[in-house]
Amino acid sequence: MDQVPAAVRTDLALEAREMLTKQVREDIPGVLVETSEDEDVLITRVNITTPEAERMMGKAKGSYITLEAPGLRYKNTPLQEKIMNFLAVELAGMVNLPRNATVLVVGLGNWNVTPDALGPRATHKIVVTRHLQEMLSPELKGGVRAVCAISPGVLGITGMETAEIIQGIVNNIKPSLVIAIDALAAASSQRVITTIQLANTGIHPGSGVGNKRFGLTQASLGVPVVAIGVPTVVHASTIAMDTINTLQEHAAFGRYFKSMANLSDQDRQTIVRQVLPDILGDLMVTPKEVDRLIEDIAAVVAGGINQAMHPNIDYENIHMYLH
Amino acid sequence: MDQVPAAVRTDLALEAREMLTKQVREDIPGVLVETSEDEDVLITRVNITTPEAERMMGKAKGSYITLEAPGLRYKNTPLQEKIMNFLAVELAGMVNLPRNATVLVVGLGNWNVTPDALGPRATHKIVVTRHLQEMLSPELKGGVRAVCAISPGVLGITGMETAEIIQGIVNNIKPSLVIAIDALAAASSQRVITTIQLANTGIHPGSGVGNKRFGLTQASLGVPVVAIGVPTVVHASTIAMDTINTLQEHAAFGRYFKSMANLSDQDRQTIVRQVLPDILGDLMVTPKEVDRLIEDIAAVVAGGINQAMHPNIDYENIHMYLH
Amino acid sequence: MDQVPAAVRTDLALEAREMLTKQVREDIPGVLVETSEDEDVLITRVNITTPEAERMMGKAKGSYITLEAPGLRYKNTPLQEKIMNFLAVELAGMVNLPRNATVLVVGLGNWNVTPDALGPRATHKIVVTRHLQEMLSPELKGGVRAVCAISPGVLGITGMETAEIIQGIVNNIKPSLVIAIDALAAASSQRVITTIQLANTGIHPGSGVGNKRFGLTQASLGVPVVAIGVPTVVHASTIAMDTINTLQEHAAFGRYFKSMANLSDQDRQTIVRQVLPDILGDLMVTPKEVDRLIEDIAAVVAGGINQAMHPNIDYENIHMYLH
Amino acid sequence: MDQVPAAVRTDLALEAREMLTKQVREDIPGVLVETSEDEDVLITRVNITTPEAERMMGKAKGSYITLEAPGLRYKNTPLQEKIMNFLAVELAGMVNLPRNATVLVVGLGNWNVTPDALGPRATHKIVVTRHLQEMLSPELKGGVRAVCAISPGVLGITGMETAEIIQGIVNNIKPSLVIAIDALAAASSQRVITTIQLANTGIHPGSGVGNKRFGLTQASLGVPVVAIGVPTVVHASTIAMDTINTLQEHAAFGRYFKSMANLSDQDRQTIVRQVLPDILGDLMVTPKEVDRLIEDIAAVVAGGINQAMHPNIDYENIHMYLH
Repeated sequence: MDQVPAAVRTDLALEAREMLTKQVREDIPGVLVETSEDEDVLITRVNITTPEAERMMGKAKGSYITLEAPGLRYKNTPLQEKIMNFLAVELAGMVNLPRNATVLVVGLGNWNVTPDALGPRATHKIVVTRHLQEMLSPELKGGVRAVCAISPGVLGITGMETAEIIQGIVNNIKPSLVIAIDALAAASSQRVITTIQLANTGIHPGSGVGNKRFGLTQASLGVPVVAIGVPTVVHASTIAMDTINTLQEHAAFGRYFKSMANLSDQDRQTIVRQVLPDILGDLMVTPKEVDRLIEDIAAVVAGGINQAMHPNIDYENIHMYLH
Repeated sequence: MDQVPAAVRTDLALEAREMLTKQVREDIPGVLVETSEDEDVLITRVNITTPEAERMMGKAKGSYITLEAPGLRYKNTPLQEKIMNFLAVELAGMVNLPRNATVLVVGLGNWNVTPDALGPRATHKIVVTRHLQEMLSPELKGGVRAVCAISPGVLGITGMETAEIIQGIVNNIKPSLVIAIDALAAASSQRVITTIQLANTGIHPGSGVGNKRFGLTQASLGVPVVAIGVPTVVHASTIAMDTINTLQEHAAFGRYFKSMANLSDQDRQTIVRQVLPDILGDLMVTPKEVDRLIEDIAAVVAGGINQAMHPNIDYENIHMYLH
Repeated sequence: MDQVPAAVRTDLALEAREMLTKQVREDIPGVLVETSEDEDVLITRVNITTPEAERMMGKAKGSYITLEAPGLRYKNTPLQEKIMNFLAVELAGMVNLPRNATVLVVGLGNWNVTPDALGPRATHKIVVTRHLQEMLSPELKGGVRAVCAISPGVLGITGMETAEIIQGIVNNIKPSLVIAIDALAAASSQRVITTIQLANTGIHPGSGVGNKRFGLTQASLGVPVVAIGVPTVVHASTIAMDTINTLQEHAAFGRYFKSMANLSDQDRQTIVRQVLPDILGDLMVTPKEVDRLIEDIAAVVAGGINQAMHPNIDYENIHMYLH
Repeated sequence: MDQVPAAVRTDLALEAREMLTKQVREDIPGVLVETSEDEDVLITRVNITTPEAERMMGKAKGSYITLEAPGLRYKNTPLQEKIMNFLAVELAGMVNLPRNATVLVVGLGNWNVTPDALGPRATHKIVVTRHLQEMLSPELKGGVRAVCAISPGVLGITGMETAEIIQGIVNNIKPSLVIAIDALAAASSQRVITTIQLANTGIHPGSGVGNKRFGLTQASLGVPVVAIGVPTVVHASTIAMDTINTLQEHAAFGRYFKSMANLSDQDRQTIVRQVLPDILGDLMVTPKEVDRLIEDIAAVVAGGINQAMHPNIDYENIHMYLH
């Protein structure tokens, strides 16, 4: 039965659809796609609308919006600000948040593992305001939402599932919305650091760089959960798999093969295991400059959230509004 | 009415009693004190037993145990291990914990402010085991308690009171005991980094380096709370106050004074404000090497807790016991 | 013979002069002083012009410029930029640097000790360009000086005197100017983080937070050395000494004393040693938020140097000028 | 002409030889190889003895010793100590160092890029003693060599070639030996973090993770230079190339191919470029836990150097020997 091949791991709905479409060579029923673009950025909206589409895609039903901007690889302040604004608009559009809503931002991932540290680093740049509500001047009361934020740390550090911690806090704080930020894995190295995905589906077990085994979803937390993710790695096995596919697909190499078309899945696995023995654990492909790149993209993600939460405020100078 | 003078700030029950005793020149009713010592360490047990004693001391009713070991200032592995063992014994004696108890360790304080980072740094060194319970071999099941740990971050970072976060987690995880680790302020610079205080009273509003305005107590959390603290700073105003006291107390300087004995509290404050204008915010006195010293003492505190929780286990090699 | 009292330690020529003037109650021969100010900043120029003035002040002959801006304590971007510009102007005026000069910036101090880390942190923010000279477009060749930078680490980390390392590099690189950045100690807590001192005298043995025992001077290196320093601490003994002085100086407290005026230097030392026993090593008074404050002031210092070195360049976008 | 294929990048002489041998299917003239092993570690000694061998191998003439211990991937203190001892023995054997020699340890690489930070992190753990020589008790004078250490930072941080900085310091300090520690790239992911290479050839332009363009050799510095390196990454292109090779080499896959044997080098490059577009810059394959693994292996490297330098000293307690 058609589904995204297990060997290639991607957290992007966009890529799951690309792979599936290539495989079945037609549109996937129940998956709606829309794109728009300008010279800097391509926006893709993927909607998974049926249980059958959910199964084929290996992704939960819901709406996935992807901003792709290859230029984010380079230090480029105007582009970063543009993407930040686009992210703010898409986030504001995805949720319908009253002016006086309380929002909890959760930074997932392990701060000790650089490619998994996007969540904690972006969360650190969130402008938290929930504790300042009484100090706001009257004219601001309506313009600054009550935002709070936490990076709880991963299971190996806390001994608690992230979902256990967040559930407890949600029960106590009663936010209207949870925004979860996480590092993702992509299938294509070009999308690393250059792509931001928003999803109104929350976080599902097994996704993310660290393979967290819990869910942060409306079902588990009782409030809507928006997930914002950026791919920071490609699994090394994906590179090996890609190489095989490239050999296979390019007519130019046809003269070498009898019948690569029917290279079995098992043989593919054998090759990948040969190149990348299991003993090594997860091997990740990252840009050499991943520390700096994650710092930069964390600022874009946090900036987009800050702006969506406090649209009329110059948040750099938010302290000036306090009395 | 007699009480510890407001101008001198100390989080140590030991020091509160010292100051009060000096002032009233007699024992304080309702405050029981016991000491024991060897060549390396002085252990003082202060019990505050009555509401009147509570008011005079400015400290909650309960039991406070202080380990003082001046040698902790110097890199000295055998002494560190000895104090770690003493701490484990005192902690085990203070709580009566069943073998299968779940314990939540909470690291208070701000990881971005070195002298306030003791809690987060010690918590990072706690051996967490709660998530490994099913992986333990049968012979170990009884010897490894279910420990989990979190450093939630301070109000200015999360927008949530620490107590709100911890309450939520406690409700969800249902531990038998909370251990809260925090950096303290001492009145005497000799006690900085060399003293560990355990208290079965939990954390009360306003204590700690960061002046957190919340409580982590049995009353607020519904489970017993043991606080473990180490003074990492002296408030600069205490140095000024101490200087005045020293001038006053030493007969040798008597020839300079007419009647320092009745130097008014208001005049003292005037002098301190002159030397340390309010505009500067909290000025802290710390050893120059505070970064290294906090790293070392955090290891002692975490080691003592680890050992009290898993008394029969060589926790360095705990991974060997997993299957 | 009159000189700055040994017990009070300051690295600021400004404060040395203040103390000395108070003591001798007249102007000091050979020390010229000029001030100018606006609502935000007070600029003081102290020139030590004779060997006798040098001895009395305990500071080398030469020119010391101090920018004092109490507002630097608070996050305030416009003020930070203003001070950065003032620093750039004063630095450019102090040295007469040809367009094609090579400049070596040296960050002194220990990056593991927060209040001593100003030098390394500011140096990290210097725009280095020496290695890019061949890549500059022709129209830029004249506008970008060849700047290089290093933070060598302190004696305890390298086993080498900083002067040995820098001499070696200077002999090889042959810069026209060395700029040495260092954390200083002030006598007054109000000057901590709010004051920047430039001196054309270089760094002399024994100054700085870490009490480095070497010199970086034109005499030792063979090229002019400008020192840029910011006080990040007050020695705790200074607080104690200040308290005694305040008691003594304020007529309001006169009723308590017979004759504090002739409190001997030895008695002062006895009191300070009582309050701050030697065993503790160097106790420093710092603002609680010293980590953040040093990060901010390091950006001001580095920004001022960057601008003085590359006056016509928008250095944020310097990469755009490369081909 | 036979040489190690350019597309596969390795800094290990061991791997260069493996690849070349596979290609030419015979021993390489002028390359001598010896191995010895036990259950934990395989030691390989490769000697490149002729200019022709140098050209074929793409590695300088000299002696390369490799310690391979797959168990280093796992936290395992006894194995780490064993490898540390082996490294000390090999290092001591490679150089013939008088008791009173001065040794300069240089940590190459960029501390801001985790997989390139091995040099700085190991250097930080070196016991420096050069500044303590006068404080040593007489019985120790002979047992503690004068060791100094520096991590100068990379060209993009300092604006100076590392060789320029080190030359200057060497001229001033006049050590008998320079030991340069650097992160390497391997061809095989199994060797990442598990292999240590010593070479008496120094560091040659273009090697290392950061592709430094300078040399640290006896020719450039005037003193012997030993390089100690650990592979921390595999270039992503190597994974792609390996996948092609695996397909080609395994008879099991023969049925798919007509004639993969003569897949041209150009076609290989085309495939790799397809999978890993140049635009992405250097993509590195690292274990997810690279931060922790580098910390651990840095301790092994530094420990081996410390022990080789001060063979009779319990260097953990070196401070006890000072007077």
